[in-house]
Amino acid sequence: MYNYGIAIHGGAGTISKSLMSEEKEKTYVEALTKARDAGYAILRGGGSSIDAVVASVSSLEDCPLFNAGKGAVFNAEGSHELDASIMSGKALDAGAVAAVQGVKNPIQLAKLVMVHSDHILLMGEGALKFAKPYNVAMENAEYFHDDHRFNQWQRMKGSDDFQLDHSDKPKQYLGTVGAVALDSHGDLAAATSTGGMTNKKFGRIGDSPIIGAGTYANNNTCAISCTGSGEYLMKGVTAYDISCMMEYGGMSLYDASHQSINTHLLKLGGDGGVVGIDRKGNIVMPFNCEGMYRASKNRNASNVLIYKV
Amino acid sequence: MYNYGIAIHGGAGTISKSLMSEEKEKTYVEALTKARDAGYAILRGGGSSIDAVVASVSSLEDCPLFNAGKGAVFNAEGSHELDASIMSGKALDAGAVAAVQGVKNPIQLAKLVMVHSDHILLMGEGALKFAKPYNVAMENAEYFHDDHRFNQWQRMKGSDDFQLDHSDKPKQYLGTVGAVALDSHGDLAAATSTGGMTNKKFGRIGDSPIIGAGTYANNNTCAISCTGSGEYLMKGVTAYDISCMMEYGGMSLYDASHQSINTHLLKLGGDGGVVGIDRKGNIVMPFNCEGMYRASKNRNASNVLIYKV
Repeated sequence: MYNYGIAIHGGAGTISKSLMSEEKEKTYVEALTKARDAGYAILRGGGSSIDAVVASVSSLEDCPLFNAGKGAVFNAEGSHELDASIMSGKALDAGAVAAVQGVKNPIQLAKLVMVHSDHILLMGEGALKFAKPYNVAMENAEYFHDDHRFNQWQRMKGSDDFQLDHSDKPKQYLGTVGAVALDSHGDLAAATSTGGMTNKKFGRIGDSPIIGAGTYANNNTCAISCTGSGEYLMKGVTAYDISCMMEYGGMSLYDASHQSINTHLLKLGGDGGVVGIDRKGNIVMPFNCEGMYRASKNRNASNVLIYKV
Repeated sequence: MYNYGIAIHGGAGTISKSLMSEEKEKTYVEALTKARDAGYAILRGGGSSIDAVVASVSSLEDCPLFNAGKGAVFNAEGSHELDASIMSGKALDAGAVAAVQGVKNPIQLAKLVMVHSDHILLMGEGALKFAKPYNVAMENAEYFHDDHRFNQWQRMKGSDDFQLDHSDKPKQYLGTVGAVALDSHGDLAAATSTGGMTNKKFGRIGDSPIIGAGTYANNNTCAISCTGSGEYLMKGVTAYDISCMMEYGGMSLYDASHQSINTHLLKLGGDGGVVGIDRKGNIVMPFNCEGMYRASKNRNASNVLIYKV
């Protein structure tokens, strides 16, 4: 039996301990623990890595603390456009949605695209049309409303600024959630979901729904989910970059992920991090900024972390 | 001075010599020659590889023979959704648009996104809103109408089939145009543009606007533009796959591109091909299907080809 395990993230950025209250920290730790354990329970029961990452990411999407699903930030029009992608390392199947509105759990829709369509990436109204026969849970604007997000948007509305989530600096937009898992059958999977950037315009699509950039899984190498400055992760093709360093360069997951985040991404000028797992169950969670909401669990160890350790 | 050169493609697929008239072949050869020479003239004059690939791809977009710009196929709603992307190998800058309607030369809009926005990929109405201040040339439905494309669509309308262009088999959708170039300053660039698949639904986005999948350029390795079954090129992250085999595996452009197309893509079940150029000016144009419209030119040689040689 393979050494199954899971790692999740809830975004990275300028997460400063000095600005974090003890109570706020506790709510993050609880939410990350709950999301991680939702996926881990499936792995422990012999379930698939795909089901595990969908369960963990759905849990993060349902939590208003993270910029995905319910907690998605406001775009320039005051609405919420959601992106998500998923990939199976077994046959390299993948599915993704971009700029969908009103979908409670975009990661579940991405999985439907993977399983039931001939396509990988569906966007906007078209993706919702595809979703119709599958009774995907929809929510109204009230569900996605959050006072904190709304105020973030009000401060930038009408300007050319855009902002992430876990950052007080404009033009840093690092809010994303994701999960990677290895199941007991030896199959890897990765999933990523995001609400994009506060005040984003022009139908911008970031790295999260892009296979190779925000998400990648391959049983020969690893499963990766990224978070960070999306445009740099797209230029760096970061998720596949890590896989290629392993496949073509013979590197370990640890060395490849650290080189991609701390050398390649930094050189491009990008902030961010990844969670990754390989077929031996090795877990990595490197990032090149102040903090990354993250958690992992396998049969030997578990953790929930926010800052550098 | 670097050994500047250019390679272009006008799509790949089941292009059968037995179905091609002499006259039809001549029109393809003329169009490919014209597009190639438009880019080559810029390189010969000391211009940039970015300007060269934009000139060549614009020429292909203006020609009704190819599935991009004017020649774009009809989607399920009877309209035309255009995708394009461009990347500069110097600083890894990139720009792309997905599902834009009415834009005469989507590749020129992709370049504007690269140069003037903080983003890489803009879609649909949002991309058009971004385009407004730049006086991008727009065309009406009549410009994009073509009887041959219209009849292709009429045969499939209302069904679940979708089809490419250079193929009589449904579910093969290999129509794309693209160009790669090395300029005399040593900078690489790649560009790709497409009208997608006949009768495509659900806001499907293929590989053409995806950096790493359909397009990639990096002065350390190569410039690549793909054409073929988009979903497989996305799973294979084909353009970046070739670059990574060179960078991490120490392979030549020739070996890397042939392995990616004839081994990796075939193993996934995908049809297609690429044009590629490296910093020494080596040009490759491998494909794993019956034919690929293609042409190349440097100071030593030039060619225009359709079938296997």
